[in-house]
Amino acid sequence: MKASRFFVSTLKEAPADAEVASHRLMTRAGMIKKLGTGIYTYMPMGLRVIRKVEAIVREEMDRAGAVELTMPVVQPAELWQETGRFEKMGPELLRIQDRHERDFVIQPTSEEVVTDIARQEFRSYKQLPKNFYQIQTKFRDERRPRFGLMRGREFIMKDAYSFDRNLEGAKASYQNMAQAYRRIFDRFGLTYRAVAADSGAIGGDLSEEFQVIAATGEDAIVYCADSDYAANMEKAEALAPTAARPAPAKALEKTPTPGKSTCADVAELLGMPLSSTVKSLVLATDKLDAKGEIVGSQVWLLLLRGDHDMNEIKVSKLPGLDQGFRFATTAEIDDHFGCKPGYLGPLNLKKPVKLVADREVAVMADWTTGANEVDFHMTGVNWSRDLPEPELVADIRNVVAGDLSPDGKGTLAIERGIEVGHVFVLGTKYSKDMNATFLDEGGKPQFLEMGCYGIGITRLPAAAIEQNHDERGIIWPEAIAPFVVVVCPIGMDRSADVKTAAEALYDQLKAAGVDVLLDDRGERPGAMFADWELIGVPHRIVISDRGLKEGQLEYQHRRDTEATKVPAGAAAEFILSRLGQ
Amino acid sequence: MKASRFFVSTLKEAPADAEVASHRLMTRAGMIKKLGTGIYTYMPMGLRVIRKVEAIVREEMDRAGAVELTMPVVQPAELWQETGRFEKMGPELLRIQDRHERDFVIQPTSEEVVTDIARQEFRSYKQLPKNFYQIQTKFRDERRPRFGLMRGREFIMKDAYSFDRNLEGAKASYQNMAQAYRRIFDRFGLTYRAVAADSGAIGGDLSEEFQVIAATGEDAIVYCADSDYAANMEKAEALAPTAARPAPAKALEKTPTPGKSTCADVAELLGMPLSSTVKSLVLATDKLDAKGEIVGSQVWLLLLRGDHDMNEIKVSKLPGLDQGFRFATTAEIDDHFGCKPGYLGPLNLKKPVKLVADREVAVMADWTTGANEVDFHMTGVNWSRDLPEPELVADIRNVVAGDLSPDGKGTLAIERGIEVGHVFVLGTKYSKDMNATFLDEGGKPQFLEMGCYGIGITRLPAAAIEQNHDERGIIWPEAIAPFVVVVCPIGMDRSADVKTAAEALYDQLKAAGVDVLLDDRGERPGAMFADWELIGVPHRIVISDRGLKEGQLEYQHRRDTEATKVPAGAAAEFILSRLGQ
Repeated sequence: MKASRFFVSTLKEAPADAEVASHRLMTRAGMIKKLGTGIYTYMPMGLRVIRKVEAIVREEMDRAGAVELTMPVVQPAELWQETGRFEKMGPELLRIQDRHERDFVIQPTSEEVVTDIARQEFRSYKQLPKNFYQIQTKFRDERRPRFGLMRGREFIMKDAYSFDRNLEGAKASYQNMAQAYRRIFDRFGLTYRAVAADSGAIGGDLSEEFQVIAATGEDAIVYCADSDYAANMEKAEALAPTAARPAPAKALEKTPTPGKSTCADVAELLGMPLSSTVKSLVLATDKLDAKGEIVGSQVWLLLLRGDHDMNEIKVSKLPGLDQGFRFATTAEIDDHFGCKPGYLGPLNLKKPVKLVADREVAVMADWTTGANEVDFHMTGVNWSRDLPEPELVADIRNVVAGDLSPDGKGTLAIERGIEVGHVFVLGTKYSKDMNATFLDEGGKPQFLEMGCYGIGITRLPAAAIEQNHDERGIIWPEAIAPFVVVVCPIGMDRSADVKTAAEALYDQLKAAGVDVLLDDRGERPGAMFADWELIGVPHRIVISDRGLKEGQLEYQHRRDTEATKVPAGAAAEFILSRLGQ
Repeated sequence: MKASRFFVSTLKEAPADAEVASHRLMTRAGMIKKLGTGIYTYMPMGLRVIRKVEAIVREEMDRAGAVELTMPVVQPAELWQETGRFEKMGPELLRIQDRHERDFVIQPTSEEVVTDIARQEFRSYKQLPKNFYQIQTKFRDERRPRFGLMRGREFIMKDAYSFDRNLEGAKASYQNMAQAYRRIFDRFGLTYRAVAADSGAIGGDLSEEFQVIAATGEDAIVYCADSDYAANMEKAEALAPTAARPAPAKALEKTPTPGKSTCADVAELLGMPLSSTVKSLVLATDKLDAKGEIVGSQVWLLLLRGDHDMNEIKVSKLPGLDQGFRFATTAEIDDHFGCKPGYLGPLNLKKPVKLVADREVAVMADWTTGANEVDFHMTGVNWSRDLPEPELVADIRNVVAGDLSPDGKGTLAIERGIEVGHVFVLGTKYSKDMNATFLDEGGKPQFLEMGCYGIGITRLPAAAIEQNHDERGIIWPEAIAPFVVVVCPIGMDRSADVKTAAEALYDQLKAAGVDVLLDDRGERPGAMFADWELIGVPHRIVISDRGLKEGQLEYQHRRDTEATKVPAGAAAEFILSRLGQ
């Protein structure tokens, strides 16, 4: 491509609303242009990146045996009503009416439509397994779209859906996709982790997120440096401590802690480690009658070590809390504890509560907790002696760095990631809602076992940039760079030698199948170099009159601190030798 | 591709609402699946065709120097309000509100957004000319979606927009695109015509439609078999007759024509050719004051030969009618003619009207027309003698077969076409509405001169089928066939020889870069052949045990009436020699 035939448009200033590097750099590099909140035009320079992402995804999906189709952007509400999502989904589902006032949605995803196709198409087990995918425009009316393509409203997603005869088959399809995803993310040339994620009602290891590692990532990722273990924060298990509970060494005491309503403040005041304090979280569950009216409530007390945080997903799976819970009201707290929050604890309750102790709390001795009296805490608290052993001990906290890895092979570390892919076994959730069946070998109808697999096509470039940039601009991995090589002639309009050499090199590289751009715009060297460093083309060759007189061109990789002189005659071979390294 | 890894799904029956061949065949061949009225999933077999259409279009757009970008599907209403189209467009513009009740539209086309980009990006004449294109999902909420992909609501369109410094430049950009379109449609392998179309306010030869010729086409196309002349019906000029008007030979007479209110009935009753009758069309124009209130009206009488039809586009360009017109009301007709429609004519008017005679009518002698009295016509009417020469003589009719070609090189013929492309000079319509300017060489702001260029990507396959099918199914041109060659082994599961030969041939063809499918589904021959004839793969090779024993395979092109025996060892070369013919 010659720059004069392409469209290069860079900006000195980033937009005021650009909070992260990828948003700033993609805008400045002329890759995206904001049309509305969370809605962007993919400008020519950005679209090249997106197309390369798409091509890699498509190749690997095809290789994995998935079959491409394209489902409509505008989808009739009827199907979404069959699964209840038309009502259940919040305003992020963009609902519209056509000229006849019939309801439609703009697809945020396509489980309903693909399940509708499946129930029409799959008559026999002989047609299974099958995996359909599409690379298509999606819309989610996010409440707070931000970070450019990272959390936009309109975006491009690759979504795939597998259909199997049974859960075993679904798991095999899932593993096949998970493998394809590894190949895809390997090819992108990004540092990423496939992390175990919560798979909801299905259970088991049937959900993984693909996270591009970046300091600005919205997600916390847990991994073990000494093993393959990796999970997202929701999923990562905190093992039960191996050490036994120490014997009580202190007496139970009511200690004044005036105005100290947090564990941290209490620990500081009393000169003890935060890890010897226990915090109280009060939840409630409601009992409903057949009409959905609340007919009774239950208050729960969760005990966590002062330096630990509650993990909502883990809590939501506890027996008794797995049908939904809420934080207790002030009235409920007062009713059961006789005290306001900040000084709550498991001793001296006014009314009984259901108690859940985190695994760590269950093995503590001589701990400190609220006294259920304002400005007082209990110290030297011990299980069995001062209160009964906990009814329920469970993992209800987020892991922290240094925790033992669940696979027993070392300790856990935590880093930040950007979710760019997700693979998931859905089971029969959608096929049951939509009565999507096939006939098994005995001729009996069975619900299709499904899986779904997403990649955020337009989020990927943003994640790549968060991971790969410096103060001058983007540093693209070769596989998804808008151009792989840029040839920068200096004074092409004045020097016939420069022009000839530049065009010859450009032709040579093109003939070798290299995605090369010749910058024939006639910009001055400073502006030209700044443009390509901002845009982030990995390989640059500078051709100047002075260099040519010495028979030299200058090569520089975007990560190099300085240029390498290359004999003019061997420039093409030199570049080819650098590609793919 | 192997069929077992792909998705082949054919139907015996076409859907009840499928009125045209392409709709029936695409549905039966498993290429599209209806999701809602005018909304279709592109199933794997159909998507392959669409992707091939896209690839050809993209290649030729790039070759022509256009630059690809992608504009959002969901577009803020503000831009559409700037051009007034948000209000002016009818309900085919799908309007939506987001969660904050802000107005948006689903793009039916993207002039507003691209002009918004242009006004931000183009600062200097040095950046021009430039042409941006996209291949993107569109939505038009058609009142009567029908014919499958031919007139759907959601569809894929390639839309390109050129920006130039002046009209001369815009014309050059237009010619460049028109040429690219010819290359594109040549490559599709379809019989088509580029026909001159009306270019509205711009004038000149600055609009062409690309029409795929098909008996079921919605458009009438006019062409000259002896020259390059081709135009759509709206545009095609009817030349002024070369012969002079004959001298009057008959006396003016009021002739009873009881109950005969059409020219055809009158001609039959009086035993004269239809071409000697003249029909009266009564139009009206309104005079508006500054507030848009009607302050007066003018009635027009248009005279056309009895066998000719009025051309609305031509009429809408006449001086006095070019600001809009309507058909006259019954009251206005009665007021001016003193008679009801069916017997109207230019003689014996109650009040004067503005008279326009078609060029053919102006040279007629002894003609017959309504007497402005029920059940009577005037015969032997002659200009000058019986009524004044017409104030305005103009071309206001549709041409008919046999008319002289406007280029003077023969006579006109008429055929049916399906519009699949349109190139058009827009001028400054959008740039003025949206104040999109650039600085010219003198540093003065000038409005961008624009052109727009569309191809109906998803309509094209439907048009191709209307032109190329038989009673057994589709006959794809090679360039856009879902697969170019299908290898059909008979009894692959029983015969190791057949399996080996089929896979060897498949591998050979694949290695040669042929888009080949191996039907390894194990269907019986009859069902297998019927599937591929329905789907319309151009080249088929059948491999059977019996044939192999004789060292023969059977080749058949989809258009061949019978198979050709080919030596098994030379099958690949044979097929390769048949490709692209």
